[in-house]
Amino acid sequence: MRTVYLNGEYLPEDQAKVSIFDRGFLMSDGIYEVTSVLGGKLIDFDGHAVRLQRSLDALDMKHPSSKDDLLEVHRELVRRNDITDGMIYLQVTRGNPGDRDFAYPPEDTVPTVVLFTQAKPGMADSPMAKTGMKIISIEDQRWGRRDIKTVQLLYPSMGKMMAKAAGADDAWMVEDGHVTEGTSNNAYIVKGNTIVTRHLGNEILHGITRAAVLRFAREAQMKVEERPFTIVEAQSADEAFITSASTFVMPVVEIDGAAVGQGTPGPVATRLREIYLDESRKAAV
Amino acid sequence: MRTVYLNGEYLPEDQAKVSIFDRGFLMSDGIYEVTSVLGGKLIDFDGHAVRLQRSLDALDMKHPSSKDDLLEVHRELVRRNDITDGMIYLQVTRGNPGDRDFAYPPEDTVPTVVLFTQAKPGMADSPMAKTGMKIISIEDQRWGRRDIKTVQLLYPSMGKMMAKAAGADDAWMVEDGHVTEGTSNNAYIVKGNTIVTRHLGNEILHGITRAAVLRFAREAQMKVEERPFTIVEAQSADEAFITSASTFVMPVVEIDGAAVGQGTPGPVATRLREIYLDESRKAAV
Repeated sequence: MRTVYLNGEYLPEDQAKVSIFDRGFLMSDGIYEVTSVLGGKLIDFDGHAVRLQRSLDALDMKHPSSKDDLLEVHRELVRRNDITDGMIYLQVTRGNPGDRDFAYPPEDTVPTVVLFTQAKPGMADSPMAKTGMKIISIEDQRWGRRDIKTVQLLYPSMGKMMAKAAGADDAWMVEDGHVTEGTSNNAYIVKGNTIVTRHLGNEILHGITRAAVLRFAREAQMKVEERPFTIVEAQSADEAFITSASTFVMPVVEIDGAAVGQGTPGPVATRLREIYLDESRKAAV
Repeated sequence: MRTVYLNGEYLPEDQAKVSIFDRGFLMSDGIYEVTSVLGGKLIDFDGHAVRLQRSLDALDMKHPSSKDDLLEVHRELVRRNDITDGMIYLQVTRGNPGDRDFAYPPEDTVPTVVLFTQAKPGMADSPMAKTGMKIISIEDQRWGRRDIKTVQLLYPSMGKMMAKAAGADDAWMVEDGHVTEGTSNNAYIVKGNTIVTRHLGNEILHGITRAAVLRFAREAQMKVEERPFTIVEAQSADEAFITSASTFVMPVVEIDGAAVGQGTPGPVATRLREIYLDESRKAAV
């Protein structure tokens, strides 16, 4: 049984419970981060800590504790659960005001802080990196502030189920004719030596892995274009791939039934995955 | 201390807790209803039960119990908490699968069912019905399926705070130039003998109170136009008002700083409120 963290305590996972009046449960008034663990060390903890602060600020939520304290909780959970490879999930909500109201509770309401681990032995050697993913396109029905990493994940969850029903691995969401992102990852296409991915804005999550991968791509003398693209452009691209904290860089080989490039993982995605994993392991804390 | 209902048990409110792995807490994978109580009886319980089923069906969620059983829980909470006037909140989530995943959990995962009361003595005699509400307009940033009554209420919550900061009582949300609805209510304007309110669709909640009020309006020989309207049209209307399960019919007297009509509650809203309260009390169960 896992040990999880809840509001200052380390607890057996089946004893970790929050009030039915928690704002996270009643109003989806919460944000989260997922940090990967490779070889027992945290990947890009700083990046996730900065984005956590950004989400909190965007929602006028209090920061529950210092970055150093959060780092220590992450490390303690890795130790207690003996995690070599896996993820650490962190959620902060506006806390439990003791009743339900749309208006934010008083300033002194204590935020709820939850962290738990998910062991994924060998996650960096996922077989999917060799075969590539099949994705479908679906309409983007999410709210307008996707740059804030809130727990309002019902539509991405529905999207995963639509993909599953279609025999695919995931879905890319399309708004006004252009791809925004995947249900839990950023989306990319490759044309020659150029990587194309949607520009930052309120329409997509500002991926921590996205920032790192684009930096590595530029360092490797690849050209990066941050602009919207369509499903048709993606289907005729040389390659396609996604990035996220837990899948790293993952090739996409089929979009709405059409093979991308040769229908197998391409050299750019494969190379970027190697670089990302190498560099991330080196910088892990 | 209130007695609340959680998964078959009646509990003191401070002992009612859900797992941190509950889909409602982690993924906003839950729906809700709010039923009003007047004189110890439930207002339009049937309407709320039908909409609950509609929300569950839209999300492929299991119905947790029969309508009769739910009615009995509502009544038991009224009795145990000695509610004369107030609300009963009901939330159903996809339950606790024991871990976090975007994909829906196995079919046999037991839904989480929570109900609690909120006492509002004299709620039918709200002073605001005499003075009217001031509202501001804000952009509608919610997801695309507002007809499903999900707990994804962060943006409506933000909207209430924007209204508060502007010295107003609530906000109407605007999409593509037209009013969708209020943060927790449907929106109406009155022009002569005609009531205008947005048509049903995925863009707004299909209000139980809305359906009743439109029926009463037609029975009272008023004309009803279900179509979009703009903030400018609303500001120059004879009257404006909102409806919801907990505010019934509430006049709106100011929109973005501009007085509507005489800047006082108008005769149509006032009359509809009287009819709605009279008829609802008669039909209460």
